[in-house]
Formats: sequence, structure tokens, C-alpha cells
Amino acid sequence: MSASSDPPKSSDPDLDLLCVNAIRFLSVDAVQRANSGHPGAPLGAAPTAYALWDRVLKHNPRDPEWPNRDRFALSVGHASAMYYSLLHLYGYDVSLDDVKSFRQWRSITPGHPERGLTPGVDTTTGPLGQGFANAVGMAIAETMLAERFNRPGHQVVDHFTYCLASDGDMMEGIVSEAASLAGTLGLGKLICLYDDNEISIEGSTDLAFREDVPARFRACGWHVAGPVDGLDVDAIERAIRDGQAETERPTLIPVTTTIAYGSPNLAGKAASHGAPLGEEEVALTRQALGWPYPPFEIPVRVLEHTRSAVGRGEEAQAEWEQRLEAYRKEYSDEAAALELALSGNLPLGWEAALDDLVGTFDSPAATRVVSGAAINALAGRVPELVGGAGDLGPSNNVVMAGLGDYQYEDRSGRNLHFGVREHAMCAVATGMALHGGLLPFCATFLCFSDYMRGAIRVAALSEQHVVYVLTHDSLGVGEDGPTHQPISQTMALRLIPRLTVIRPADADETLEAWRLAASRRGGPTALVLSRQDVPPLASIGAEAGARGNVARGAYVVRGGDGMPDVLLIGTGSEVQLAMGAAKSLEQDGVRTRVVSMPSWELFEEQPSEYRESVLPHSVRARVAVEAGTTIGWHRYVGLDGAVVGRDDFGKCGPGALVMEKLGFTTENVAAAARAVLGSQR
Amino acid sequence: MSASSDPPKSSDPDLDLLCVNAIRFLSVDAVQRANSGHPGAPLGAAPTAYALWDRVLKHNPRDPEWPNRDRFALSVGHASAMYYSLLHLYGYDVSLDDVKSFRQWRSITPGHPERGLTPGVDTTTGPLGQGFANAVGMAIAETMLAERFNRPGHQVVDHFTYCLASDGDMMEGIVSEAASLAGTLGLGKLICLYDDNEISIEGSTDLAFREDVPARFRACGWHVAGPVDGLDVDAIERAIRDGQAETERPTLIPVTTTIAYGSPNLAGKAASHGAPLGEEEVALTRQALGWPYPPFEIPVRVLEHTRSAVGRGEEAQAEWEQRLEAYRKEYSDEAAALELALSGNLPLGWEAALDDLVGTFDSPAATRVVSGAAINALAGRVPELVGGAGDLGPSNNVVMAGLGDYQYEDRSGRNLHFGVREHAMCAVATGMALHGGLLPFCATFLCFSDYMRGAIRVAALSEQHVVYVLTHDSLGVGEDGPTHQPISQTMALRLIPRLTVIRPADADETLEAWRLAASRRGGPTALVLSRQDVPPLASIGAEAGARGNVARGAYVVRGGDGMPDVLLIGTGSEVQLAMGAAKSLEQDGVRTRVVSMPSWELFEEQPSEYRESVLPHSVRARVAVEAGTTIGWHRYVGLDGAVVGRDDFGKCGPGALVMEKLGFTTENVAAAARAVLGSQR
Repeated sequence: MSASSDPPKSSDPDLDLLCVNAIRFLSVDAVQRANSGHPGAPLGAAPTAYALWDRVLKHNPRDPEWPNRDRFALSVGHASAMYYSLLHLYGYDVSLDDVKSFRQWRSITPGHPERGLTPGVDTTTGPLGQGFANAVGMAIAETMLAERFNRPGHQVVDHFTYCLASDGDMMEGIVSEAASLAGTLGLGKLICLYDDNEISIEGSTDLAFREDVPARFRACGWHVAGPVDGLDVDAIERAIRDGQAETERPTLIPVTTTIAYGSPNLAGKAASHGAPLGEEEVALTRQALGWPYPPFEIPVRVLEHTRSAVGRGEEAQAEWEQRLEAYRKEYSDEAAALELALSGNLPLGWEAALDDLVGTFDSPAATRVVSGAAINALAGRVPELVGGAGDLGPSNNVVMAGLGDYQYEDRSGRNLHFGVREHAMCAVATGMALHGGLLPFCATFLCFSDYMRGAIRVAALSEQHVVYVLTHDSLGVGEDGPTHQPISQTMALRLIPRLTVIRPADADETLEAWRLAASRRGGPTALVLSRQDVPPLASIGAEAGARGNVARGAYVVRGGDGMPDVLLIGTGSEVQLAMGAAKSLEQDGVRTRVVSMPSWELFEEQPSEYRESVLPHSVRARVAVEAGTTIGWHRYVGLDGAVVGRDDFGKCGPGALVMEKLGFTTENVAAAARAVLGSQR
Repeated sequence: MSASSDPPKSSDPDLDLLCVNAIRFLSVDAVQRANSGHPGAPLGAAPTAYALWDRVLKHNPRDPEWPNRDRFALSVGHASAMYYSLLHLYGYDVSLDDVKSFRQWRSITPGHPERGLTPGVDTTTGPLGQGFANAVGMAIAETMLAERFNRPGHQVVDHFTYCLASDGDMMEGIVSEAASLAGTLGLGKLICLYDDNEISIEGSTDLAFREDVPARFRACGWHVAGPVDGLDVDAIERAIRDGQAETERPTLIPVTTTIAYGSPNLAGKAASHGAPLGEEEVALTRQALGWPYPPFEIPVRVLEHTRSAVGRGEEAQAEWEQRLEAYRKEYSDEAAALELALSGNLPLGWEAALDDLVGTFDSPAATRVVSGAAINALAGRVPELVGGAGDLGPSNNVVMAGLGDYQYEDRSGRNLHFGVREHAMCAVATGMALHGGLLPFCATFLCFSDYMRGAIRVAALSEQHVVYVLTHDSLGVGEDGPTHQPISQTMALRLIPRLTVIRPADADETLEAWRLAASRRGGPTALVLSRQDVPPLASIGAEAGARGNVARGAYVVRGGDGMPDVLLIGTGSEVQLAMGAAKSLEQDGVRTRVVSMPSWELFEEQPSEYRESVLPHSVRARVAVEAGTTIGWHRYVGLDGAVVGRDDFGKCGPGALVMEKLGFTTENVAAAARAVLGSQR
């Protein structure tokens, strides 16, 4: 194990306390200066953070992205001031001015930590529970890469993942889900410090949270080290090392702390959670903790000590780079593959996997089935592609044949089994992406993307490259009934910034969708896929193909010549209805253009000329058809157009019948077009 | 306790087995006939369901809505065929033809159980975990009503709540959340049967779920009775009675079962979960279980036995009605109040609580603060109003002063503490509404409505009367940063059918919003409320008041006379920007109309004449302003209008500054209006 070779440092209690108090007051003073923030958690958790950061964490402040660093997820994101204090003290590129600019416009020290904005922040947190689940994903990633790349005598991937979580995190269902998964998978290098201060916003945790957390974690297969006294840095360090020594189970370290420790009037009280202590109370806290320094003054002894982390970090990274060099000599292909994986780029020639499939689906096929073929083809050329479903793998068509199940007993499997835990699944996938070296996907029914939504949002905000495979995408689900028929979900996903949503209309569009999903960085991509068969657009009169066009978000599939009388816009399984309606309208001499619009986000990225060429502004007779909510579609049909959609829940019955009964027919689309044309004459 | 007076029946193993097999084959044959559905769970869980329904459940098939019946939540909703079989066998108004119409168009036996559609179905389930959390809410409701209404010698509210849950439920975070809450609250009359068949869709639960479920529940404060053998009806009954005898803790009964029990080739296999067994395998299963009857034939002995539940149920209800009569004599006011509460109607004169507040906010106030005043005023006149927050009570302004905390130690408190468990909070509130007798609300930050979304959807689908108080509704949240600033959430809520979303612009609109939320049945209402102060519209030039107008969804606040040149549409804290822009435009001679649109759903319910009077079709110069996504607003501004919104995530900084920097200013709204007017000339 990587860090066990470090002997515990001889402790200097005075210096330790000085450092801990430096963290405390830097945090409290930042909150006070911002007149906004959370002072309680930093005062209570500073010794815990110090024990981890000072004595155990393997990191290099000069290279926050060092691939083999230990990962750290501050799941208790509202302790952000403490995080920034640590980053400053330990020599990251976070200046004292940055700390002073806490929570201000354009600062790099926002109210909650944001990955990509602040050097050294490994994940975006604040929405409770997310960071914990991210940490589980990071730990999974480490085992996968270690399995793939390490060789006897060459441990090129070898680090721990740490998490600091609060009572609030522990109450969130996503943490239960992720903890259960981590226990099942035996993630021995995952260590979670649990800041147990027994206070949340409404008061004592007795009000809402009387469970025995360590017992719960033990039931989920965790090792528990502690509880330990949150003021005893040595004890905290010992518990962490105990966790490092336990290789078969993840470790929970309950740390008994006092919120707002040191504050004479607010310690142990909920009032200290989310508001500045006030100048007077800060002064009293200074007295109580014996801290004579003015705000933002850091004793030289502290800085000398904490900044020594820089040299140690550089040494650690240099040592790793030597190891990497030795590895490169002996295993040059593997080393090149490791570097490629860590770069986030895909292997040369990866697109051939999809090219080979283009045009091979010449009869109707469900887009989920085509997606399954795409995943399997890609998996052969992209070793970084790993993923699985929330216990719906066969239905979601995401099982990668012959690539094994990722399990405690076998880290080489590339099929993950997330269990029926959609929320954690999504955040775990984010954590895998955050780690680097992998291209993760996860899958469930589109309907249950609602359960994932909290985690999708954070993945999008932190611009992580993850693919969501969301099948059973409409009323076409049929017999499972309205509980399982999505109505609002596709549009609801489109509302999330930095998330790309693609709903392909046929096999070739699905292959292009995967081409984009696999290569598009800067945020996750959601693939919205049908349960039921859809015909190849080419077989029903398409005049343009998917290649190059799905990337533009929308394109003319029929009626591209000249100015049309009417525009029919469809997505996914409803494009065929627009095609059918077009033929009917054409027979009446109506010049009809059909636009397939698999992705709003991609279309909006196009130059205005292109968008105008597809949807000419002057053509106001427009009909959109999508088996979901009509809200949103007026963006493309305006006040004068019509939307063939569904604004109530679905109904149970065979899928094709449900679609027909609820109005998703060629006739209805044609009728809507005629009505729109009529009202405009 | 209510049911403990029933002596255990002398068991007739042959008859028991016959009944169990009748449940099994009615279910399997229904699935086979539909050629769709889930046969595995019914085959495995039939003895469990039989033990509960035949020997313990206090219910009256002739009056499925009997208020004092035991509640039953089939959390494993995909076992719906078994549910319908039980309903038919035990004499509910579910005919054999209904069972034969399983999963068909317009049948009352849809793919997953739907409350309101099928007599005897207590809650809509299918999305895993929801039913379990609903059951927790039902059990809470029972204790609240028992505390309020029961008197010495008069137990007019006195029933158990049962739940049947699967491995899939147990993996869901919402179940962990709800279980932890139930344990904390010591819900002694909640009993959950856990159908532990160790199989989920992807295979053995070992793949993803190795935790010790009973130990987890014990850690959460539950009593565990069992595990018991899932073929032993007597043992299951004993465990249930053990759970009844445990009054201080909820009870989990792990029942060890085999999925698709009896099927020679599919028992114990995941393949039996979600697809018909096939004619051949059904025949083999008949042989294996010794069931000679053709599909849908029920032996007379079975029906004679199961239908005896009707007489017992009628007796039980008659006995309760006698008790109620005695109660009415001694406690006539309480009895009248109980009947009113159960009717779902509000007490006479309830609106006076809000009337008293109208016009009292004559200076700027945050709508969350006004909402808090409304809640407190309503609470005084509406004893049914109960609720709380996901550990954000003080921030959400939902604490009802002086009304106590609902706790294990005190069932009279009306302030609930849900903990940081948004998903379970929402489903628990649904369960309280499903129970009847209460008007529940629950609260969190709007941003975290994402976590609630799975449960909001089911509440809407089942048309339950719940109020969601969602505060901190925009970029105005400020310093907490983009992790806490909602962008997509308001619009995403509008997409959910049968949910009414109201985003009031000032104090009086907030009071009207609560008037609607408290009285509007047929689905939940979400109140979207500001963190920051907003001025009374009357103080900034409004020409119309909120009274009577919020109910119409949108109304003209300024510029109602004559045909305007431009329409400015706003919601919530952005209406003031539209008002400011109007003044600027008016100075230039532009006839400007400002429309406050607190609720899309309410507006769309209005007659077309009213909608036309507010937003004349011919006026195409339109600007909408809302501090959230622009998607959706084209419904009201069309292709020629403009939306002042935000399609990326927010930014950290003081709230007012963030709003300004991101374009939410009077000047920007006016400029957008001028641009729109210019492009149309």
C-alpha cells in the first residue's frame, strides 16, 4: 500500500494545535468577512482535516492533477471555507487574497467547492451526499485502473480515496446506496471520515436521526475504525492508518466532534451551522481558543510546517514518475495506454467500431438494441469504456458480452452492477469520470432518470464526461403503465445546463449519437432510447442520412428543396409519424419538410445560418411531434404552430395501442399540420 | 391493539396451500394471458401475502376506503398481478374479467397498481421504494390522528400499516431514508414484510447487494422478526403478530423466498422476474405444484374461504362504527372534527387566516417569509395542517410556532423533522395524504426538489393533496453559489402533469398562493418562493391586486387598457423588473402591458377568452423574464419574442450582484422589449 510506508510523524502537540487553529480561524474569518457561510463545521472538523491532510494525504500542491494522488471528496461541501484554508496553507495556488474573497463574485473560492474552478478541488459538492458517492466512484476507478495497468513490481496506480462527510450526508439516501455498493464491492482503499457532531440545521440529530451509523455501515460490509475523539489528532491519524491496513473493506471513521468548537455561546448549537458567528463571537472564540492573531494572519511556524507539504508532494510525484519510467521501459504498450487513458482521449481508430455498424440495421430495430450493439462494438476498441445499469442491464441493452462483471473478486470486469440505486449510480459514474482514465456510462429506464436528477445536475455543473443510457423512452413502454411511461423526462433533461440530450430516430441516428456521446467532453450526454422497434428512416423516405447530421442536432430528412409550406419536426420514434404525415400532405400538394431533431443542444450550437436553413424563420406553419410534454416545443413552433404531445400521464396497454389511442399517429400529425396551415390562410 | 384480539385461526394446511396456489396461478395466468408482466414475485411471495391478507389484515372489501382499515402498501409494485388476485379473491370489486384484462387498455388492472383506479389499492407503486416510504407516512398519520382524536376508552383511530417490499426496494436510497426516519420516530404500528428472494433483474443479489438488511434495519431502530421461511404461512403469521406486539419500534420481517417458486426451469432465476413464463413452463409449474385447474378457474373451497373476509370486514367496520357512535355521544365536537378531517375539506372560515394577512406586508419581504406567516396563520385554523422540512425548517420558514415537534415521545407535535432526506420526505408526505385526515406539506430549497422528483411524480400521478414549499428559488440565493442556485427546477416542475406550480411575485400573491395550495385537490401544489425581499407590487405601480387573480394563473398588473405594443411577462421576483422596464418603455411612448404569471397550470385552465384578454394573440412583441432556463417560455413569447433568462448554471456572489451581473435588470428587460419591437417594425 502506498502510504503505509510513511512512518507516523512524531507529533508536536503545540504545533498541531497551532495548525488546527490556523485552519479554524482562517475559515471563520473568511466567513465573517464574506458575512456569509458556514463556520460551525470548520471549527469542529479542523483537527480531522488536519490529521488527514498533514499526516496522511498523498498529494502534490504543485500539481493538483497528479494522476496518482490520493483523492479527497469534501462531501460536507458547506465546510468549503475549511477546504480553501487547507488549500492555501498546504501550498496550492489559492492565495490569501483568494481566501479573503470567499463567496465573492468571480472569486475562486465560491460558497461550495467547484471542480475546475479551484486548484486542488477534486469534486463539486454542497448538495449533500454527492461527494460521498463520488468518492465511491473514484475508489472503483482506482481498482479498475490498478487491475488493468499494474504489473508485478510496478504499482503505477496505487492511491487511497478519502471522504469527509457530515450527519447531513449520512441522512441522504444516496449515501446509503453508495455505502451499500462500496461494501458489496469491498473497496478497501476507500476511507470515509464521518464528522459526527450530532447537530443539523433544525437542532439535535435526535430530532430526525437516531440511527446507529457505525452499525449501519457494518451491516453494509464496512470496517469501522473508531469512534475517535475529534480533538485528538493522533487518534484520528491512527484510525486512518487502521483503515489503510484494512484492505478488504471500506472504512468508516466516526469522529466525535462539536460544531462550532471553541465558540463560547454557539458551540454545540445549530445556530452556528450556516451563518457567520458575528464579530463579537469571533473575538470570544479567539479568546477561548487562545488565538491572538488578527484575521488572516498566519503564524510563521504554521506556514513553515504546512508548506513543507509542497516538497513532500513533489518528491512523492517524482518517485511515482520514476516508477512510471521503469514501467514504461518494461511495459511500453501499457504505459502508452495508461497515458492515453489518463488524457481522456480515445484510442486511434475508435470510430471504426461504429462505422462498421452503419447501415447494418436494415429492418426495424429498437434504438436501445442498436445502442447495445454500439456499446459492444465500442467496448472492443475503447478499453476505457466501463459501465452498467441500475439492475436493468438486459432491458437497457448495456451488457458488454464477454467483458466480465466488475466485482470484489474480479476487478477486471467492465460490466458494473449498480443495483437498484439510480441516484448513487449516477454520482458514482461521475466519480469514476472525475478520477480520470475511464469513460463511464450508466443506465436505467428514462422514467427513473428522475431518481438520478440530483447527481446528473452536479455532473453537468462539473462538466464530467459520462454517458447516460436511458431506455424505454415513451408511452411506447406500454403495459408497464403510467408509473413507467415517461412524459416529462426528456424535456426535463433538456433543461439541465451543460447536459447534451440525444433522442435518435433510428439505428443510424443511434450510432451517430454514440459517436458523439463517446467523444463529446465538457459535460455528460444522455441518450434517450426506445423500447420498441423503429424503422430505418431510409426505408420510409428519408432523403438524408444520419452521418454528420446528428452532430448538427437537427437536419432535414425530407423536403429539403425550396421553401416548404409546413415544417414537421420530430424526435426519436415519432420521426416516422412526421414522415408518414408528410407523404399524406404531399399528396394534397402541400410542400412539406420533415426535420429530425435528435438534440436541441447540438442544434442550438450551430451557426444561425444553418439553423435558418433547417427551420426558415418565415415558415410559421410548424408542427412538432414528441411522445412527451408539449411544454418547450413552442421554441420551435411558436405561437402559430402545434405540438402533438402529451401533457397528462400515460395509460396502460400494449405500447402500439397506447401510442395510437393517445394520438401519436400519422393521421393526427397530418391533421395538426392541416389545421395550422388552415389557420394561417 | 386492534388486531391482537383476533385469535390466530386454527390452520388447515391443505386449504392454506390451495389458497396460496390460487393466488399464484391467478397471477401467473394473468401475466401469461397479457403476455406481459412479472410472474416471479407472485409465485414466491404468495404465502406471505396470504398470511397477511387472510389472517391479519383488518379491512372491509365492501368499503375499501373505510378510514380505520389497516393500510397496505405493495412497495414491490411489479407484483401487481398478485395484488389483483388478492383483491379478487378477497371480495373487492375486482372481477375475474378484470384480472383477465391485466395490463390491457382501459382495464382497472394496469401494469403497476394505481391508487384511485382499482378498489382496494392504497397507493400507487412500481417505481421502487416509493411504497415503503408511503407506508411510513401512513403510519405517521395514524399516530397523529390517534393522538388528536382518541380518548380514554375510545380508540377511534387504531390500525396497522403493512408494507410488502422486495430486494429492489431495499436497495433504493429512499427506503434507507424512510427506514431511518421510521426508526427515529418509533412507529410501532408499521410492519414491513421483506420478500427476500436474493434475485434481481441482473441476477443474484450478490452482484450488487451483499449487505445484511436486518442488521441495517436494527441499526436504524427497527425490531426484526425473523427471518422466516417464506413457505410457512404459520411462521409468517407469527412474525406479523410479533410485530404487532412490539409497540415501540417498527418491525421488519425478512421472509426467505424463492423467485418463481414451483417453476421447474425458472425458479430462483432472474429470467422469471419480468417476462411471462411461457405456456409450457406454466404447464410444468402446474404439474410441479399440483394445480390441476385450468387458467382462471378458482376452486370453490378457496373462494368460500377467502370471501369470508367480506363478512369479517363488514363486521369489523360495523364494530368500529359503533365505537364511533359512542365517541360521538361523548365527544361530539371531536367526532365532528374527525369526520371533517377525513372528508378532506377544510374547517369553515379557514380562509380568514389568510384574509387577516392580506395587505399587512407593506414593505419588501421575501416570499418565503410571507409563506411562513401564512403557514402559521393557517395552522391556527386548520388543525389538519402538518409538515416540516428536510432539515431546513428555519430557512424554509415552515416552523409552526408553538405547535411542537412531532416525535416518538410526543405525537401531538405538528412540526415534522424529516432530516436531510428529501426523497423520502416527499413520499412520506404523500403517504400522510393517502392516509386521509391530514393536509401535509414539506419543504426544502428549490434546488433540491431534484432529489424529490421521483416522489413528486408519483404524488401527482395519484393526485394527492400535498404542498411543497420550495424556497431559495433563483440566482438570488447568491453566496451559496451555483450548487444551490436553481436554474432548471421551476420549469422542470411545470413539466410534471397534475402538479400545480405557483411562483408568487409579492406578499399578497404569496397569500393567494397558499389559499390555492391549501384548497386545491386533485394533485400536489409546489410553491416556489424567494430567499430575498421583493417589493409589494402595489408599491411599484401595480394596477391590479392578487386577490382572485393568482387563481387565474396570470393577470394584467399594469397596462390593461387598450391594445398594448408590447407584453412583458414575469413571475416571482422578476415581476418587479418587468414593472421597472414598463415605466422606462412608457416614457418612450411604448404602450406596455405587464403580466404577472404566477402559475402556468392555472392560466391554462382558464377559458380561452380570458387567456386572450391577458395575452392578445395579435401582440407579438413579447418578453418573458424569469431567473431560470429560457426553455419553455416560447409558449408565451413565440418565435418573435424574447426571454430574459439563464441557460447556464449560476455564479457565486452576493445575490443582488449575481442577479445584476447575469442580466436580471430592468434595463435588460427594457432593452429586450425594444429589440423585439424594433425587429417587428
